[in-house]
Amino acid sequence: MSPGRSEPSHSPYDPATSDPAISGDAPCLVDVWRGPFIEGGHRGHAVVVDADGRIVAHWGDPDLSVMPRSAIKSLQALALVESGAAGSFGLADAEIALALASHSGEVQHASRVAAWLDRIGLAVDDLECGAQAPMHRDSADALVRTGAPATPAHNNCSGKHAGFLTTAIHLGVDPKSYIGFDHPVQALVREHLHGMTDIDPASRPRGIDGCSIPAHALPLRNVALGLARLDAHSQDDQSAHGQACRRILAAWAAHPELIAGTGRFDTRLMTAAKGRALTKAGAEGVSCAVIPGRRLAVAVKIEDGAERAASVVMAAVLSALGAVDRDDPAIRSLVGPTITNWNGLSVGALAPHAAFADSLRGAFQ
Amino acid sequence: MSPGRSEPSHSPYDPATSDPAISGDAPCLVDVWRGPFIEGGHRGHAVVVDADGRIVAHWGDPDLSVMPRSAIKSLQALALVESGAAGSFGLADAEIALALASHSGEVQHASRVAAWLDRIGLAVDDLECGAQAPMHRDSADALVRTGAPATPAHNNCSGKHAGFLTTAIHLGVDPKSYIGFDHPVQALVREHLHGMTDIDPASRPRGIDGCSIPAHALPLRNVALGLARLDAHSQDDQSAHGQACRRILAAWAAHPELIAGTGRFDTRLMTAAKGRALTKAGAEGVSCAVIPGRRLAVAVKIEDGAERAASVVMAAVLSALGAVDRDDPAIRSLVGPTITNWNGLSVGALAPHAAFADSLRGAFQ
Repeated sequence: MSPGRSEPSHSPYDPATSDPAISGDAPCLVDVWRGPFIEGGHRGHAVVVDADGRIVAHWGDPDLSVMPRSAIKSLQALALVESGAAGSFGLADAEIALALASHSGEVQHASRVAAWLDRIGLAVDDLECGAQAPMHRDSADALVRTGAPATPAHNNCSGKHAGFLTTAIHLGVDPKSYIGFDHPVQALVREHLHGMTDIDPASRPRGIDGCSIPAHALPLRNVALGLARLDAHSQDDQSAHGQACRRILAAWAAHPELIAGTGRFDTRLMTAAKGRALTKAGAEGVSCAVIPGRRLAVAVKIEDGAERAASVVMAAVLSALGAVDRDDPAIRSLVGPTITNWNGLSVGALAPHAAFADSLRGAFQ
Repeated sequence: MSPGRSEPSHSPYDPATSDPAISGDAPCLVDVWRGPFIEGGHRGHAVVVDADGRIVAHWGDPDLSVMPRSAIKSLQALALVESGAAGSFGLADAEIALALASHSGEVQHASRVAAWLDRIGLAVDDLECGAQAPMHRDSADALVRTGAPATPAHNNCSGKHAGFLTTAIHLGVDPKSYIGFDHPVQALVREHLHGMTDIDPASRPRGIDGCSIPAHALPLRNVALGLARLDAHSQDDQSAHGQACRRILAAWAAHPELIAGTGRFDTRLMTAAKGRALTKAGAEGVSCAVIPGRRLAVAVKIEDGAERAASVVMAAVLSALGAVDRDDPAIRSLVGPTITNWNGLSVGALAPHAAFADSLRGAFQ
């Protein structure tokens, strides 16, 4: 059976413009072990690209169209920083980091976003991302104990949305409906995505993201290209654009705890990497990374959308690239995370699939 | 890249006895749509088997070894019912249903299990499944508000474990360590699994389940065979075994709300099916069904472990079998569940993959 392209009843699917993010030849990248048995596996695609668009390594199809979702918040944030909005409102690195984040809704995240909105004369109710209970269990429970409902400030995308609002005010446009495709803020975001990835998002299949902004489908290698350029431009470009790239990478590196949250992959990996690798998850099994100073970026899409597998693939690729220390126990626990059960017993693990692990050994020598 | 069989560092993997539950030819069964774009997909295996072991239909590899996990609680419950334990303690159908359940830890579930344990002279602390916060969000929040911690009674497997304890007492053995492979209760469970599936679980790769009992790997078709026999024996067999099969199927059919919980697939499907199909999820993308009165069963394994995809496949196969009404809006919403975002917008859907949907049309005519 091969991927078909017919139209299910719910959807205006157009095979002429839409390349599904599934492919007959997606290799198995991650095994799911339970005791001595491989209970399942995850297939996907990964690519390492340099700032000139050259493919340094790839698994699966580097040209596959994927929706990078939240994994390219760093590119979306160019609208906030390069426009001068961040500077004119005196945003701190922590606030820029929150604009790049899919945070866990902890107090350190939600309260900073609320304070930021207050400073630009707006309120949490101006966020159009929707309310979401904190992803961080203890923070969600603490909120339940107060009796207060979750708000849009707890939404994992609230920092990005605070950035959109800040940009709108700086541009002098009505911030209302800033999530819409036709709003000037989204047009500016598309302009930056186009410039960095060489692909005009407006020409590509489009959906709506979890936080209601447009979600564009881009070839996986172009997603990585955009992120590799973020690093290259931060080194080479002395214009406002280059400064914006530097500011974004610096904020990303300075605040691993704000980009995701307690216990989560991006926070744990970046804490261990100490600035040598910057990672960012996107929904439905996407993970992206910039390798600062090396003009390289990585983009991963797990076919089935599993975050647990995208994390393993990313940790394994970054280990092979030498961007993280493969012998660091913190990194090893991300490349091969243990599965524990309700009694806290180790009952299994995720691990790079044998052929993928083998291919990584020689990939970057 | 094809599935490899080498041994990662963490695991005593033995390729001579272990058949990994991943396969090069797993077909795509479910698409993940976002707007007009297929954002991802789920591959897997499914088989429909009759009580004589004949394959009525299959997708992927019907001989694939899988760990059925909680999807065969109905077969494990033969130890409780056929031994006479259920009868001697006067268990109600609701309690038998809880023994088959992976429940959501709602009050209707946890309080019934606690009362059952009390009646057999034991307590929640005698459960060896580990504590788990209720899966049902509102129930978990309600518990947080009381300030009390989650207990083993909230564990989704607490009913099965209450059944194991009841069986141990009935057999006159020490219930302590009833979760162990060597305990007489687990030996009795294996005996029933062997009889129903034609496979001795002790001869197969073995892990530890989420609730700490042994998890055995069995060929997918044999899992379905065991469940088809549950139906056939309930019709043909007047012995204690046939009576036990009848009791289990009756309890399963009578209590959709206890088998899973509010809003969950098994509860929603069985409520709509009105006894014409009995379903049960297992962890890591397993779903099984019995078609009462038709000597048929279905077993599904999604390669990547996604429950959302196993549910779609099961609903689609049961629709094609005529075991549920495909025009019932409740069923349609299970075959093609909508994806909504934080603002409650419909932004996508899961749907049977085109080639899988096509193959279902003629499969059972």
